[in-house]
Amino acid sequence: MARFKKITIIGVGLIGGSIGLAVRKRRLADEVIGVFRHESTLRRALKCHAVDTATMSMEKGVKGADLIIVTSPVHSIPKIIKGAAKYSKKGAIITDAGSTKSWIVSSVEKGLAKDRKIHFVGSHPMAGSERAGVEFAHANLFVKSPCIVTKTAATDRVSLNRVKKFWGSLGAVVKVMNPSSHDKSVALISHLPHIVAFGLAGSVPLKELQYAAEGFKDTTRVAASDPELWSDIFLTNKREILKAGRLFESHYKGILRAISKGDHNRTVNFLRRAKSKRDALGPNGKESK
Amino acid sequence: MARFKKITIIGVGLIGGSIGLAVRKRRLADEVIGVFRHESTLRRALKCHAVDTATMSMEKGVKGADLIIVTSPVHSIPKIIKGAAKYSKKGAIITDAGSTKSWIVSSVEKGLAKDRKIHFVGSHPMAGSERAGVEFAHANLFVKSPCIVTKTAATDRVSLNRVKKFWGSLGAVVKVMNPSSHDKSVALISHLPHIVAFGLAGSVPLKELQYAAEGFKDTTRVAASDPELWSDIFLTNKREILKAGRLFESHYKGILRAISKGDHNRTVNFLRRAKSKRDALGPNGKESK
Repeated sequence: MARFKKITIIGVGLIGGSIGLAVRKRRLADEVIGVFRHESTLRRALKCHAVDTATMSMEKGVKGADLIIVTSPVHSIPKIIKGAAKYSKKGAIITDAGSTKSWIVSSVEKGLAKDRKIHFVGSHPMAGSERAGVEFAHANLFVKSPCIVTKTAATDRVSLNRVKKFWGSLGAVVKVMNPSSHDKSVALISHLPHIVAFGLAGSVPLKELQYAAEGFKDTTRVAASDPELWSDIFLTNKREILKAGRLFESHYKGILRAISKGDHNRTVNFLRRAKSKRDALGPNGKESK
Repeated sequence: MARFKKITIIGVGLIGGSIGLAVRKRRLADEVIGVFRHESTLRRALKCHAVDTATMSMEKGVKGADLIIVTSPVHSIPKIIKGAAKYSKKGAIITDAGSTKSWIVSSVEKGLAKDRKIHFVGSHPMAGSERAGVEFAHANLFVKSPCIVTKTAATDRVSLNRVKKFWGSLGAVVKVMNPSSHDKSVALISHLPHIVAFGLAGSVPLKELQYAAEGFKDTTRVAASDPELWSDIFLTNKREILKAGRLFESHYKGILRAISKGDHNRTVNFLRRAKSKRDALGPNGKESK
């Protein structure tokens, strides 16, 4: 169990709200503070009991916090961390929940280079939903979900361990990686599947949607995700996404080629190999239940 | 309500079994017979109470039936219907549950051209699951699912109406189409999404699967479907699938191009258009609950 006196969450939406609820439920902190930019989100977060206290002042919010978690959109994270660091106490640990890591971690490490009073450790809890907003937050969002924590030459080892333990206490399956390995993995397992789902949903003519059954709905579920958030993620992991795209295309086109040639055996072989990988993952998970 | 004295189901797996359970639950027939090729499937179907009586004899099975439903794999349907027609009573209605229609309907109509004592109407109940087998059958599989019934110059109008009513009684949302319009629609809304899911699952290296979260699982759920069944479907709807593929690729590649150019606005616009279509479908449905 990872206990902290004061945990501050900056940007309390689905992920930040779920962290707040999880910390409060598991009593991992004496106090959970939320820092907000808009009063409407602040009120909604308090209504959901996602945080104990809410403020719109960065200074008040991070003052005295042992752990600061930034869960705002990817592009805003380095700037927010730089701002939060100004008011943080010496030895505070700052982490984030951004879906790309190389760009965030290198930007943050560069920005904090002269300011070694706080310790930054990058995180990516791989949980979430196509639904945005604190209303959809829940205390068990991270249970059994993968969570990647990044390690670089600049990472403080004690802080790394505390952040690992923190996500573990929320029920996540934690793995330490360097930022570029992380970005390669998520390009394949998350970012590209999102692009494919957006591509599928976008390409189906409106009048055909009436025939959509559960297969189409599941295959395109993540295409209901927030366009701004995901554009942000895609643009900060461009290189790995383009590489993952080439890998997908070689399989996708291989299947289409086998079909166009009327080659039953070759088609079946492609499908069998795909099925064996998908079967290894087991049936659809908790999200859809 | 569509009532029949005797309904015969040929090939009792997930779809056939669900029809049997639905008919029995709703008391739409005095008797439901299942015709089987293997004794093991016969025993499993009886254990699930999917049919009242089971036989391995086509002759015994279809004798005196008012409605015969062939739910075997696509490629086998025309041959089975031809065989069943020999023993059918005059005026019997035969339908199927195959996922492609042009190939099936034209093959069947050609095969039955001289034999006008029975009436064939093509059907495609768009319900199902990546899980095959009568064990997964359930009486409400068709509730609120689209079901397409085909109409051609050769279709008997009275039989068409009875088949429409039959699927409606099972809870399906029935729509009449010609076989080629059907094949175009399902290529876009079902066949291509399956190919994309198979492509995605197939392209992800095994070691990356450990990071798969709910998004990946949903996007690739249908890649756990039966390779033989789906190869069959793909190969009998080749032309429309290749056309649907080109439509998907233009959107998919458009998104990747916008990302590779670092064009935030263009990326967001692609995602927004896709999201608006996906949002129109509502959240993931009954299957996943």
